[in-house]
Amino acid sequence: MEKNPKVIDLGAMTPEQMLPGLTRRYASGEQTTVTLFEYTTGGVAPMHAHRHEQVSYVVRGRLKATVDGRTFELGPGQAVLVPPNVPHRFEALTDALEIDFFTPARDDWAAGDDRYLRILGST
Amino acid sequence: MEKNPKVIDLGAMTPEQMLPGLTRRYASGEQTTVTLFEYTTGGVAPMHAHRHEQVSYVVRGRLKATVDGRTFELGPGQAVLVPPNVPHRFEALTDALEIDFFTPARDDWAAGDDRYLRILGST
Repeated sequence: MEKNPKVIDLGAMTPEQMLPGLTRRYASGEQTTVTLFEYTTGGVAPMHAHRHEQVSYVVRGRLKATVDGRTFELGPGQAVLVPPNVPHRFEALTDALEIDFFTPARDDWAAGDDRYLRILGST
Repeated sequence: MEKNPKVIDLGAMTPEQMLPGLTRRYASGEQTTVTLFEYTTGGVAPMHAHRHEQVSYVVRGRLKATVDGRTFELGPGQAVLVPPNVPHRFEALTDALEIDFFTPARDDWAAGDDRYLRILGST
C-alpha cells in the first residue's frame, strides 16, 4: 500500500516459481497490482476467479486465454480484459511474457492466498 | 464500460497522434484503462495530474519520468507508480513504448478531455 511515487523494477526482481513453467513478479500500489507472469511453453495459470478486474497484456510469445468459457489466442500487443469474478485460465503456446494489471490491489496475494497458482488440480 | 470479457488488440489499433513524438492507443474496462504510449526520441507527455492511480511500465526504450518533483530514468522491465493527484511528466530519451494502466477508468479521456496531451504550453 503506497501513497508515494515509486519505481517498481519488476525486471530486476527474482522471479517466484509458481507452477512448473510459470513464474511471477509483482508489486502493488494503493489500488492496483502490476504483475509479470513469465511462462515456458505449456505453462499454465489454472482456472480461477477473483473480485479484481484484470487486464492481461502479452509482451512476447503466444498465450491461449480461456475466459468465461470463451477461448482467445493472444500475441504481442494483444490483451484480454477479464471482468471481476469471471473464471479464467492461461496456457502458454510458446515461451511468453504477460503483464497483468489488477484493481483493486491483490490483497489476497499479500495475505499469502495464491494456492490456485501453486496447485495443479484444477488446470 | 465493459462487463464482458473482450480482447483488446492494442497493437492493431491506429495510433492517435497527440503531441509531436507521442501517440496513444487505449481501451477501457469498467474500472480500468490500458494504454500504449509510443514515443519517438524527445517526445513528451507534459506535466499533469489526475485522480487516477497510474502504473507506467516501459516495454522498450528509455524514459525520464518526473513524478512529484523526483526524476527517475526507466528502461525495459521498469515501471513507476504514480499515486492519484500527483503531478507527473514523461520524456523519451530514446524511441520508447510505455504501457500505462489506470484506475478508475479514464472517463475524462472518454469525454474528450485530454488537452494536456495535445498542447505544448506546460511541458
